Amino acid sequence: MKKQLFFAVFILLSLTLLFQNISADEGMYPISEIDKLDLQAKGLEISPSEIYDPEGLSLIYAIVQVGATGSFVSPEGLIITNHHVAYSSVQAASTKEKDYIKHGFLARNRFEEIPAKGRTARITESYKDVSAEVLNAVKVGMDYAQMTKAVEKKIKEIVAEAEKRNPGKRAEVAEMFRGKTYVLFLYTYLKDIRLVYVPPRSVGEFGGDVDNWMWPRHTGDFSFLRAYVAPDGTPAEYSPENIPFRPKRYLKVDPEGVNEGDFVFLLGYPGRTYRHRTSHFWAFEEEVRMPWVVDWYAWQIDVMEKIGNDDREIALKHLSRIKGLSNTLKNYRGKLKGMNRLDLVNRKRREEEALQRFIGEDTARQAKYKDILEQIGQIFEERRGQAEYELILEYLRRSVNMVNFGYTVYEAAVELQKDDLERESAYMDRNFPRTKERLLMTLKNYYEPTDRKIFREILRRASRLPEKYHIPALDRIIKKDDPERAFDGFIEKAYSSTDLHLESVLEGALKMSLPELKKMKDPFIELAEALYPTYQKLKEAQKARRGALGHLHGQLIDVKKQFLQKEFIPDANRTLRLTFGRIRGYKPADAVCYRPITTLDGVIEKTTGQEPFDTPSQLLELFKTKDYGHFSHPDLKSVPVCILYDADTTGGNSGSPVLNARGELVGVNFDRAWEATINDYAWNESYSRSIAVDIRYVLWVTQKFGNVAYLLEEMDVLNKL
Amino acid sequence: MKKQLFFAVFILLSLTLLFQNISADEGMYPISEIDKLDLQAKGLEISPSEIYDPEGLSLIYAIVQVGATGSFVSPEGLIITNHHVAYSSVQAASTKEKDYIKHGFLARNRFEEIPAKGRTARITESYKDVSAEVLNAVKVGMDYAQMTKAVEKKIKEIVAEAEKRNPGKRAEVAEMFRGKTYVLFLYTYLKDIRLVYVPPRSVGEFGGDVDNWMWPRHTGDFSFLRAYVAPDGTPAEYSPENIPFRPKRYLKVDPEGVNEGDFVFLLGYPGRTYRHRTSHFWAFEEEVRMPWVVDWYAWQIDVMEKIGNDDREIALKHLSRIKGLSNTLKNYRGKLKGMNRLDLVNRKRREEEALQRFIGEDTARQAKYKDILEQIGQIFEERRGQAEYELILEYLRRSVNMVNFGYTVYEAAVELQKDDLERESAYMDRNFPRTKERLLMTLKNYYEPTDRKIFREILRRASRLPEKYHIPALDRIIKKDDPERAFDGFIEKAYSSTDLHLESVLEGALKMSLPELKKMKDPFIELAEALYPTYQKLKEAQKARRGALGHLHGQLIDVKKQFLQKEFIPDANRTLRLTFGRIRGYKPADAVCYRPITTLDGVIEKTTGQEPFDTPSQLLELFKTKDYGHFSHPDLKSVPVCILYDADTTGGNSGSPVLNARGELVGVNFDRAWEATINDYAWNESYSRSIAVDIRYVLWVTQKFGNVAYLLEEMDVLNKL
Repeated sequence: MKKQLFFAVFILLSLTLLFQNISADEGMYPISEIDKLDLQAKGLEISPSEIYDPEGLSLIYAIVQVGATGSFVSPEGLIITNHHVAYSSVQAASTKEKDYIKHGFLARNRFEEIPAKGRTARITESYKDVSAEVLNAVKVGMDYAQMTKAVEKKIKEIVAEAEKRNPGKRAEVAEMFRGKTYVLFLYTYLKDIRLVYVPPRSVGEFGGDVDNWMWPRHTGDFSFLRAYVAPDGTPAEYSPENIPFRPKRYLKVDPEGVNEGDFVFLLGYPGRTYRHRTSHFWAFEEEVRMPWVVDWYAWQIDVMEKIGNDDREIALKHLSRIKGLSNTLKNYRGKLKGMNRLDLVNRKRREEEALQRFIGEDTARQAKYKDILEQIGQIFEERRGQAEYELILEYLRRSVNMVNFGYTVYEAAVELQKDDLERESAYMDRNFPRTKERLLMTLKNYYEPTDRKIFREILRRASRLPEKYHIPALDRIIKKDDPERAFDGFIEKAYSSTDLHLESVLEGALKMSLPELKKMKDPFIELAEALYPTYQKLKEAQKARRGALGHLHGQLIDVKKQFLQKEFIPDANRTLRLTFGRIRGYKPADAVCYRPITTLDGVIEKTTGQEPFDTPSQLLELFKTKDYGHFSHPDLKSVPVCILYDADTTGGNSGSPVLNARGELVGVNFDRAWEATINDYAWNESYSRSIAVDIRYVLWVTQKFGNVAYLLEEMDVLNKL
Repeated sequence: MKKQLFFAVFILLSLTLLFQNISADEGMYPISEIDKLDLQAKGLEISPSEIYDPEGLSLIYAIVQVGATGSFVSPEGLIITNHHVAYSSVQAASTKEKDYIKHGFLARNRFEEIPAKGRTARITESYKDVSAEVLNAVKVGMDYAQMTKAVEKKIKEIVAEAEKRNPGKRAEVAEMFRGKTYVLFLYTYLKDIRLVYVPPRSVGEFGGDVDNWMWPRHTGDFSFLRAYVAPDGTPAEYSPENIPFRPKRYLKVDPEGVNEGDFVFLLGYPGRTYRHRTSHFWAFEEEVRMPWVVDWYAWQIDVMEKIGNDDREIALKHLSRIKGLSNTLKNYRGKLKGMNRLDLVNRKRREEEALQRFIGEDTARQAKYKDILEQIGQIFEERRGQAEYELILEYLRRSVNMVNFGYTVYEAAVELQKDDLERESAYMDRNFPRTKERLLMTLKNYYEPTDRKIFREILRRASRLPEKYHIPALDRIIKKDDPERAFDGFIEKAYSSTDLHLESVLEGALKMSLPELKKMKDPFIELAEALYPTYQKLKEAQKARRGALGHLHGQLIDVKKQFLQKEFIPDANRTLRLTFGRIRGYKPADAVCYRPITTLDGVIEKTTGQEPFDTPSQLLELFKTKDYGHFSHPDLKSVPVCILYDADTTGGNSGSPVLNARGELVGVNFDRAWEATINDYAWNESYSRSIAVDIRYVLWVTQKFGNVAYLLEEMDVLNKL
């Protein structure tokens, strides 16, 4: 009866919380906005200035951009992030003999840590509004393309100037409100990142693509990395002499974890949201772009799976690419379903109609803002007309590896002739090394028969474009009378005569001048040269479009503020943001409810022995003997595995620390629920739920399964148990 | 705040119920056992004698066996049962022009009611234990096959005698405990059943095979039929002069329905359970028979779907057969999963080990019971050895229509030579008309190319049987050197020369003597003749097996009673049973919970416009305008559609009335949850849940969608609203 009473009180309290409605709210708040939020009323138990204090030492110094997000969890530069964030580095470090994806990676001491290839880490140090400076570059009389270029150039100058004034730091200017506000961020930029502990795929990726974007989830999606710097403490490329980086702040870990209803907040680098875009953009995404990409990715995955069926080694080459495509595919399908279910485009239209009525109510307003929405609509009308053309050009380079290699080599030679500040960003001195590195990583998984098939399909699609959108460079490949045979001939000739897929040749070509490239007579470099004017023309058109939309959106946000009489926060843009909420389940369908904490029992339930549900036998053994150490949940009587909360996240928040009311680490964010893929357009109280691996699972796996007790010691967890 | 308090009180009450643990229990109780149950302590508010009273008028007279179960809901013989129970009659009444499956059937008055082909109705009138009489037929010195035959013969005699003494009634002897107890049931047997109101497939079968065996469910699986009798009140075949049957009792309908936690009970005719079988049988089912059938049914469905892809009309011919196969397939898959998950066979083995230890503790017991389990084990060892052979013989007749036609015709001619009581049950005078009717209904959906393919595959499988199990009749068809070509030749010749697929020929053949049949020179009748000795031999062996198992199980139940010191209830056997429980959700997986009441909102959520999720537009309209009449659930704010409860049911309980604590109709049982397919082996408190269509949905669809208000009047519902 005592138990009953306890439950009743517990439920009364939960209900009270429910009706007070102090749950999450839409919003990925820039750190500059944190002080405007009454976070303590929402549940925060520490001072907001402990999260961010422009004058002092705060939690944000523990947050690190490592592709997506990570956080420091020890004074010795130990970083926790997701398994899937570290994935490409783990794959790059793996060989046939040492398959770290399959078996996991464990450094038993610092000397055994190995470089996390392609990985860098940025820590936000400071920010400054540079909107006036940026917008001053726009002069009367410029057309839209000129406006875009002027803004781009000014930003590069601001960045160069900032990096000159702050040696060793990296600067970035982020567009916050489109065409309206710009913020200069200064980052500490670390380049020597190493692998410390990565669980095997069967834990870190448990459930694979089947469970991806899904709740209930049972994935131990975490990895430990470590950042190193030169012996003098300055950022440096990898060297055995380097020493662990000592962050200004690191997160305390709470091994007790959280419970349903608890307040949590996240810090991280969410990628892109589109909430301030108009219905025209949303409808374009829903009706045109996403369906096209869904179709194209599904086709590619199908081709790669069929080719991989015959040969495990080839299948492994395709693995990471299929993983990436599937991830986007499932995300887009979720978005398309959610946009339809919630009728998002029409809701947006109704908002815009209300705004338009508001504009019409006042003559001055009308004069200034009357045509904004219509003009944006016209831009998207045009964009729809040539969408197929643009998409084919985009994916000709993105999906066909050889075209990508040829084009990058050619474009690099063109760009490197220019002054650094005049170049396309990828070819600027500060970025070109990473551009090259990424290209060479693509090469690792190159498989010619697949590339031929994909190239052929893109050519087939290009051959069906209306005459008005023909691509001159392809005219000699696609013969009107018998297009398919014609490009079969070209493909055979091109692939059998190129050497650009050889690492040494590709590396060499990336250093060549235009005349040197010409001498190579490589068919893909020649194709790139022929395509170059088309891509330039397209880029010019896109810059004009971007200029126009930036200009129009700048005005739109002005009048929206007048209309709604409130401040907004800008869409996510890979800058540091805070979001908060509570541990909370949801109702995915009639008569179904999801609880917000999963357990080890659920891992066992899902285990089939077959990938991706092939739990390691050692972990099964720990379950059997109930060897849960200190990490069993008192009510659930099992080790919590994942947690769910209604904070507002998007891609890029992967690896974000989930922090409790006292700012201690209780989870590592790694995904959203299927229904929350629509977060990019709109946050929804009923469906927007994000997923983290529970700190108790992280610690349990690390201690009991990985036998990496020293990490728990380093995180100062042992004495809290 | 008032609302909060209300919720808290509500939850406290729910918790109280939870901890009192007065929920369901394993058991499909024969009506003779009802008085031993303290049903009022479980929640029943009426006297148990109102459910069954051997001396008086009780609820059981409202329960009717119509294939599965139905119940009378008006004094005018109105029956409510499932859509899927009435399905075959609705299909048989449909033509291309009048597709009652698609559009539903509605009789606006009695004159528009049409015969429900193949449908009969039985009402349990009385029962009597005849165990002694039956078992007396077994004499010392008989072998096991002789024992089986003696029992079968005695039962036929008892039945014949009973039917003679009770003109117009139908008698059946049911084996309750195997080899131990036998009960004679007397039934009122009605043969003129008509269709009254059948909703369209898009309501009555909403969710189709996708949702079958699943919760949450949104299927309006109900139909109304009416029973007719001769003007003098005696059972009669269809005649326009017949008048509605006036049942001794009919159910009152409670339009208020039930809520979570409410007590409910069901009456019905559950088919078969296997709880008293041993681990040997369970393991045989899990490891041998069910996997074979799953494979075979999946193969057949695949073939039929492929053939149907090209031609809608052929697809329609396959529809009902695919439906049947899929239903079993999904059920078996659920069972296999559940048996594995709950480790049922090993649990049973542990029980048997404990029993064996108990037997060993006492010399007298040991002498009597020591070898029982071992002997049963040996029988199943043998059965495993020839399982493939037996399964092929079984499905040669069951799956190949032409073999079935040929064999039935041939066997009928053999059997009809004998005295009625000596015949196989299907050919006794009292059963032969239905046997013929069923055969002719099979013929309706016969499609030769499918039948050829299935025959070919069975022959292919037969050709791979070990020499020891060769089937002599097939020796000339399956040539050792080139088996496949050999039976291709046979198939071509047989199908192109038979006429047995013509209705008139088949009907004619069913009346012929053996010499007349021989003259037909039909290849399938000739095949039947050649197969006959093999089937006879198999039947003999099976009777011996049945005799042995009956004998052993009779002893087993004796010693089990001594061991467990309690009474058991017999396995389900198509006789009238009561089961009870509460409206209750469950947890199908970690972090997922299912609520026990679904709503119209869920129908809309699932609606895609594509079969099987194609809600009729008129119903969508009613949802849009929230035209819920009196049937909206006060908390859920929508029309309840299906309810879930932890009573103990199995196949045959389809159509069973779900009754509230006052014995009023609140739902019509139609399915179990996926996890409850294991009910046939073991009831499980966590997973055993059954599904009914909620009476509120039945009434709402009937009134608002079907516009059949007169049925609500007839059920005396209107004045309760």
